[in-house]
Amino acid sequence: GFARVDVGREARQGLPEVVYGPGKTAEQVKAIVAGLLAHNTGPVMVTRVAPEAAGEILTGSPGGTYDPEARLLLWRPAAIGSFKVMVVAAGTSDRPVAAEAATVCAAVGLDTTAVHDVGVAGIERVLQVRERLQAADAVIVVAGMEGALASVVGGMVRSPVVAVPTSVGYGASLEGVTALLAMHASCAAGVTVVNIDSGFGAAIAVHRIAQAWGGRR
Amino acid sequence: GFARVDVGREARQGLPEVVYGPGKTAEQVKAIVAGLLAHNTGPVMVTRVAPEAAGEILTGSPGGTYDPEARLLLWRPAAIGSFKVMVVAAGTSDRPVAAEAATVCAAVGLDTTAVHDVGVAGIERVLQVRERLQAADAVIVVAGMEGALASVVGGMVRSPVVAVPTSVGYGASLEGVTALLAMHASCAAGVTVVNIDSGFGAAIAVHRIAQAWGGRR
Amino acid sequence: GFARVDVGREARQGLPEVVYGPGKTAEQVKAIVAGLLAHNTGPVMVTRVAPEAAGEILTGSPGGTYDPEARLLLWRPAAIGSFKVMVVAAGTSDRPVAAEAATVCAAVGLDTTAVHDVGVAGIERVLQVRERLQAADAVIVVAGMEGALASVVGGMVRSPVVAVPTSVGYGASLEGVTALLAMHASCAAGVTVVNIDSGFGAAIAVHRIAQAWGGRR
Amino acid sequence: GFARVDVGREARQGLPEVVYGPGKTAEQVKAIVAGLLAHNTGPVMVTRVAPEAAGEILTGSPGGTYDPEARLLLWRPAAIGSFKVMVVAAGTSDRPVAAEAATVCAAVGLDTTAVHDVGVAGIERVLQVRERLQAADAVIVVAGMEGALASVVGGMVRSPVVAVPTSVGYGASLEGVTALLAMHASCAAGVTVVNIDSGFGAAIAVHRIAQAWGGRR
Amino acid sequence: GFARVDVGREARQGLPEVVYGPGKTAEQVKAIVAGLLAHNTGPVMVTRVAPEAAGEILTGSPGGTYDPEARLLLWRPAAIGSFKVMVVAAGTSDRPVAAEAATVCAAVGLDTTAVHDVGVAGIERVLQVRERLQAADAVIVVAGMEGALASVVGGMVRSPVVAVPTSVGYGASLEGVTALLAMHASCAAGVTVVNIDSGFGAAIAVHRIAQAWGGRR
Amino acid sequence: GFARVDVGREARQGLPEVVYGPGKTAEQVKAIVAGLLAHNTGPVMVTRVAPEAAGEILTGSPGGTYDPEARLLLWRPAAIGSFKVMVVAAGTSDRPVAAEAATVCAAVGLDTTAVHDVGVAGIERVLQVRERLQAADAVIVVAGMEGALASVVGGMVRSPVVAVPTSVGYGASLEGVTALLAMHASCAAGVTVVNIDSGFGAAIAVHRIAQAWGGRR
Amino acid sequence: GFARVDVGREARQGLPEVVYGPGKTAEQVKAIVAGLLAHNTGPVMVTRVAPEAAGEILTGSPGGTYDPEARLLLWRPAAIGSFKVMVVAAGTSDRPVAAEAATVCAAVGLDTTAVHDVGVAGIERVLQVRERLQAADAVIVVAGMEGALASVVGGMVRSPVVAVPTSVGYGASLEGVTALLAMHASCAAGVTVVNIDSGFGAAIAVHRIAQAWGGRR
Amino acid sequence: GFARVDVGREARQGLPEVVYGPGKTAEQVKAIVAGLLAHNTGPVMVTRVAPEAAGEILTGSPGGTYDPEARLLLWRPAAIGSFKVMVVAAGTSDRPVAAEAATVCAAVGLDTTAVHDVGVAGIERVLQVRERLQAADAVIVVAGMEGALASVVGGMVRSPVVAVPTSVGYGASLEGVTALLAMHASCAAGVTVVNIDSGFGAAIAVHRIAQAWGGRR
Ligand SMILES: Nc1ncnc2c1ncn2[C@@H]1O[C@H](COP(=O)(O)O)[C@@H](O)[C@H]1O
Ligand SMILES: Nc1ncnc2c1ncn2[C@@H]1O[C@H](COP(=O)(O)O)[C@@H](O)[C@H]1O
Ligand SMILES: Nc1ncnc2c1ncn2[C@@H]1O[C@H](COP(=O)(O)O)[C@@H](O)[C@H]1O
Ligand SMILES: Nc1ncnc2c1ncn2[C@@H]1O[C@H](COP(=O)(O)O)[C@@H](O)[C@H]1O
Ligand SMILES: [Mg+2]
Ligand SMILES: [Mg+2]
Ligand SMILES: [Mg+2]
Ligand SMILES: [Mg+2]
Ligand SMILES: [Mg+2]
Ligand SMILES: [Mg+2]
Ligand SMILES: [Mg+2]
Ligand SMILES: [Mg+2]
Repeated sequence: GFARVDVGREARQGLPEVVYGPGKTAEQVKAIVAGLLAHNTGPVMVTRVAPEAAGEILTGSPGGTYDPEARLLLWRPAAIGSFKVMVVAAGTSDRPVAAEAATVCAAVGLDTTAVHDVGVAGIERVLQVRERLQAADAVIVVAGMEGALASVVGGMVRSPVVAVPTSVGYGASLEGVTALLAMHASCAAGVTVVNIDSGFGAAIAVHRIAQAWGGRR
Repeated sequence: GFARVDVGREARQGLPEVVYGPGKTAEQVKAIVAGLLAHNTGPVMVTRVAPEAAGEILTGSPGGTYDPEARLLLWRPAAIGSFKVMVVAAGTSDRPVAAEAATVCAAVGLDTTAVHDVGVAGIERVLQVRERLQAADAVIVVAGMEGALASVVGGMVRSPVVAVPTSVGYGASLEGVTALLAMHASCAAGVTVVNIDSGFGAAIAVHRIAQAWGGRR
Repeated sequence: GFARVDVGREARQGLPEVVYGPGKTAEQVKAIVAGLLAHNTGPVMVTRVAPEAAGEILTGSPGGTYDPEARLLLWRPAAIGSFKVMVVAAGTSDRPVAAEAATVCAAVGLDTTAVHDVGVAGIERVLQVRERLQAADAVIVVAGMEGALASVVGGMVRSPVVAVPTSVGYGASLEGVTALLAMHASCAAGVTVVNIDSGFGAAIAVHRIAQAWGGRR
Repeated sequence: GFARVDVGREARQGLPEVVYGPGKTAEQVKAIVAGLLAHNTGPVMVTRVAPEAAGEILTGSPGGTYDPEARLLLWRPAAIGSFKVMVVAAGTSDRPVAAEAATVCAAVGLDTTAVHDVGVAGIERVLQVRERLQAADAVIVVAGMEGALASVVGGMVRSPVVAVPTSVGYGASLEGVTALLAMHASCAAGVTVVNIDSGFGAAIAVHRIAQAWGGRR
Repeated sequence: GFARVDVGREARQGLPEVVYGPGKTAEQVKAIVAGLLAHNTGPVMVTRVAPEAAGEILTGSPGGTYDPEARLLLWRPAAIGSFKVMVVAAGTSDRPVAAEAATVCAAVGLDTTAVHDVGVAGIERVLQVRERLQAADAVIVVAGMEGALASVVGGMVRSPVVAVPTSVGYGASLEGVTALLAMHASCAAGVTVVNIDSGFGAAIAVHRIAQAWGGRR
Repeated sequence: GFARVDVGREARQGLPEVVYGPGKTAEQVKAIVAGLLAHNTGPVMVTRVAPEAAGEILTGSPGGTYDPEARLLLWRPAAIGSFKVMVVAAGTSDRPVAAEAATVCAAVGLDTTAVHDVGVAGIERVLQVRERLQAADAVIVVAGMEGALASVVGGMVRSPVVAVPTSVGYGASLEGVTALLAMHASCAAGVTVVNIDSGFGAAIAVHRIAQAWGGRR
Repeated sequence: GFARVDVGREARQGLPEVVYGPGKTAEQVKAIVAGLLAHNTGPVMVTRVAPEAAGEILTGSPGGTYDPEARLLLWRPAAIGSFKVMVVAAGTSDRPVAAEAATVCAAVGLDTTAVHDVGVAGIERVLQVRERLQAADAVIVVAGMEGALASVVGGMVRSPVVAVPTSVGYGASLEGVTALLAMHASCAAGVTVVNIDSGFGAAIAVHRIAQAWGGRR
Repeated sequence: GFARVDVGREARQGLPEVVYGPGKTAEQVKAIVAGLLAHNTGPVMVTRVAPEAAGEILTGSPGGTYDPEARLLLWRPAAIGSFKVMVVAAGTSDRPVAAEAATVCAAVGLDTTAVHDVGVAGIERVLQVRERLQAADAVIVVAGMEGALASVVGGMVRSPVVAVPTSVGYGASLEGVTALLAMHASCAAGVTVVNIDSGFGAAIAVHRIAQAWGGRR
């Protein structure tokens, strides 16, 4: 066939391979989803799906849902467990990336909450959610422009912080590269970073954290 | 004084502030270390210390040790707990960064092992340590040049993987920038990345993971 | 005329000049193809041709074929010889570039096979094709994102390995620049690299290898 | 002679030309300083002077002073006026740049105070100086790494904020380029930026602000 | 809701939060504007609004105006005060950015004038406006390509100069990055810079200058 | 120990692992070389060795030789075979990289010749060696600055061409990055490229070519 | 008005200001052209004009002509003089830039010839036009990709050589930046370079050469 | 020998090959100079020679002179002709590059004058030399930082202007890359640019201009 789906991934890593939507026809996605539903037992997801394509794919594999803000297709979500993750986003334009992070987190069974529009230029907005951030088992920080929210949150909580730079902004933002570099240069120790706009990557990183500990208890 | 040490960090984040050695005189480091030993109770560390400076600083605050490969000064290491972290490095030139990661992990109480010279160009060397990697609660991957080891390991284990790009290499390596970008573009989902050569950052990221779960059990 | 086709190239290098499609009108391509068919005797190719233009050009010079995935127009393919080349691609999104490589290889008479979706994040998929890779006289590795497949394959085979970085990916992929740099920084010795998305360039590089030895035997 | 000092600058802009030390011999600097002292009446400064050179230059034009942290030579400082500027620096390594800013501010007659080691990773340290920041007529923010302090301070005060990115940090800091870009992409509106490590540039920018209003009252 | 508007900003910084238009639906902008009109008393602005969206938004909150060149929506402009700002632009293509700067300046109560097409390649055009530039309390310089106008004007006036690099030009202009870097490297001391194409940012920077002095008199 | 030498590489790829000298002590190199001499049977090499270190290492493993221009240590060179490689370098400053390429080629048994100072600005110099270039089974082109020699030679010969960009030049040469990019953008089809200054990489690439065909005859 | 045309330029520099078309409405261009025709006496040109706009503008100022390949509008071309310029282009895709150069050269009175598709990968094509190149008073070299033609031609002729990098190519071509850098790093001495795709800039540079000497005879 | 000096260059281009000093031993330079003096008749030059090496080389080929500011060795300077070139430099730190330009110009027989420290931030200094600039047959503009002087001078004179960006400056100057890009983006038409710090390249460019016209009169 046109693809060699990694069906062993669920056994190896605890989650079926997630399908990356762009560059695939609706036909191809339908076939891959059908294969994953048949050969794996956990949640099946397709990321970055346009609304037009979503409808057609869903008809091929009933039982799925589509989240238009996150642009995510989902079948067989996991039951929500006890691991609490909080997604915090700096600006309203960062919402789609934050939505992808939150939707994938929930799909893999994390107890997920989200808060938006918490830019550091209004530091009160960050202080208002400080207790909620400190109560989470992990935090995902979504921020474009200069990405400063990762440093501020990273210095406030003791739990793991995964930062997602976004391509939001213009000019010196360099389509997310500035935020990515700034998050790496962060003065807050132990903050880790994933690719630009990769809400998906951050969610899987937190899934690894939740799962690893779950496995050894 | 010349510095405002963040003595509240231990209460807030579970670990005293770690001192960044470069650009500080031995006199200044001695004063900061004395302050941290007096106002905090956990491990006190200074990173990136040259051998010449290390001796002088140690005379000011007895009871510390110096690791020349990691270039780390340490007082009051934590007792080793049950969280297992494995540091895996791609080349022999990546050893100092891997040493910084491993030494800081051990200092904060993680059960730490390390393996070196596991380049993907000899994939057998990776396969030989696969079981050991899968048995760890978290993995730190240290690699320069093209950073491919992060993708391979990221696809093998289900636990959190923190990748450290190093400045090892020449020409197209661009002093670590190529490895950093490549690790972000990695096809392995949920791998997170810290700054170039920051063994320290990776260790603290794993400390956050270990600590967050420890706190909620 | 509007162009000075290098009709001496076939005598000098063993293959007629290949036409680069973008920026030329169908009229212009037709005229160049007619000239090449008249003044040369080997395979005539036009790369990167959109489906709409292909039809019109084919009517001008009958006897040709169009491969829509490779976007290649071809007249007078060479007879397949004994030199075995294998094209291996990391992801399904890399298929068009891999198709260009494979189609040009076959057109110039190489015994060509291709395998897709062999990402290093599922290392088993690479190991499964190891013997096939080792049996080839040359290997073309097509990979975007972090380009790690080139290092892994480069360390597995003794034959020439030509790596093609692709513009697949987003964010830190920098439209193929990251993969190009990473492939150059590769820890596998003697892997060579061609331009981003240049399946064509890799195929001609292997044609040079096959031909040079053919000439001296 | 070897230089055409812009002696008209004092009349035109309210301050004699400031001498940039690097690349000039002590002999050359002595001659320029003598000329400025003779043909102008305001403060005369030389920036980025090494301690060794400072001594020799001072013997040529008595009455000057040398600040070793700021690396500044100064003759005829202005009387301190009523315009209050506050220099706030993120890390102890940013001290030399902050010192250059503060020393030049004081030399041109600004009522200058400075506070160091106010990193956003310990947001309390910023909140502790909030009132002092809000009481200033202008604020200079000095920060390397990710430069996040500029956004936080920019959102706290209503007065002009001039940000100075520093070359402090390693890896993804790109010798100050990351901080410069991040400060431009800042989510705090109306923060302006000067060149990397240019404490001098920030001080002159504030001098322009103080002077323009002074002139029109 | 979908956004947490920073309604405290007016009290803290003297101006309500300005809405960034891109990426928001007309519905969302209407709601935010209504909130700002209700909870704040000063000027309310939305930047970078396309003509199509402007009409619809204005129907939701009557009393506003739309400037198509500046692409700005405005309600409750401030009364014009005595602080004189001059906007000077290098080329006719820089007009939209200059218009954003001038329109925001006027909206917040600055006494604003503008002059266009003052490129340094015809230095007479700069000299012709020299007196007008010197009479301003602050100058905003808008220039793309090589950004040289900032240096020339910066050396002519004693008042604050805020430079706005624009994305005008092609090739080596790198979409404004060259002008941004060049303005930072400027040989004119004390010129400050804002983000590429951010006429808005420059206007707010001047508003800070005007306001800070206003407050202390 | 400190390293895990890939002793299986000779069986897998036809050549023992080559030791990368930088960052290793003479002690370490001695131990690795002794191991390779003991467990493998082919040529043993150490690249990028300074003259001072070379003497000491040679005393530890007698029978080796040191080439100071190539900075290569060599034991057990292979017998010279029939595969003819020509190394052509653009400028006299490119000599060390060309020497590394030629010395490694000869060490692995290729029939190697070299010609220097063949810059395209004196095209006669290239035309004078055209027949010699056309007679080679493979060509290695070494060039810094703009790397144009690769395109000219690539268009002259029918055999494989491996281009090595060098860090020779200043300013716009960007330490070899310009030559690397230019060689990839080359208008000559099928030229492949290795890392900046990697004469070693080019030699191993040609070894792969020679060996692959050797194996199948 | 919306623009301050530099009508003094003809007196100062021997040629009326040339209008840059992009970003101006047909209305605006018409007005500027009318002004230039009225207040100047030499050739009037508008560059980068789309065919649709050209027709409308021509109706406003009769007597002009439009060259669709060069995208140039022209009124009152100068009489052709004795200064011979040759435009040589590397590929057929470089034709539009070469056409802009040649059309502007002819418009300002240079005796202009052009030759296309002279890529260095077929060095014979360059050698065939060598005498014609050597007979020119100045040469304009237009080349994208790696820009090698500038070095080859620069080493062949004794007259001034102005190189125009083009944005032709893909991947490592970086939209002309690679060619621009490579032309600067050229091993041919005394070749000068203008902006990417600026056939216009090269033509004016040659006009300066022709005119300066003309003036002093 | 170690080099293939291009002795035909004098016949082909009117000037013997100029020796690039860096990376050559004094022995090698002596041999090349002796060869050029023997086989050519025009000026012989070596660029970028350190003072220590200069003395030794001069003993090998008597009759030469060394200019320490330009770092140039020269034998057999040409007689000064009637072509007038003016070298204008922006800052005192640009002097060495300006000196290289002026010394090479004089060596090849151009009537050369130079003026220094003409920064655009003091535009009067430019206006003061305007007549002298307009009287020259060609102008070389040497400037670092933002390179704005090239635009201003380019708009003042009708003769050819060759701009040399220098690596003077810090931070956003990016070691001359900013000035190089800015000069290309210049709003002054027909200014050409050579490599960073290449006073040599600018001088040869002007030599081409002077010579081409000389040849045809
Ligand atoms: N090697 C290191 N890399 C990055 N950050 C570090 C390192 N060592 C210490 N730090 C951080 O640097 C901060 C202290 O900086 P300073 O005030 O300059 O001593 C602490 O908050 C640490 O988290
Ligand atoms: N054109 C603009 N450029 C940069 N920042 C802007 C612009 N317009 C508004 N802003 C800022 O964007 C913030 C609002 O962002 P948002 O929450 O997405 O509406 C406000 O704090 C403004 O300071
Ligand atoms: N000059 C060189 N450039 C790039 N790679 C090299 C060089 N010399 C040796 N190598 C490679 O470096 C690897 C050994 O690295 P190490 O384990 O650090 O000795 C081997 O696999 C070689 O293929
Ligand atoms: N300072 C310089 N900058 C750039 N090119 C130079 C310089 N000096 C000499 N050259 C050129 O370098 C070439 C000689 O290089 P080489 O063979 O290494 O001596 C000659 O063709 C000169 O045109
Ligand atoms: Mg907001
Ligand atoms: Mg190794
Ligand atoms: Mg796949
Ligand atoms: Mg600190
Ligand atoms: Mg204009
Ligand atoms: Mg040479
Ligand atoms: Mg062609
Ligand atoms: Mg000066």
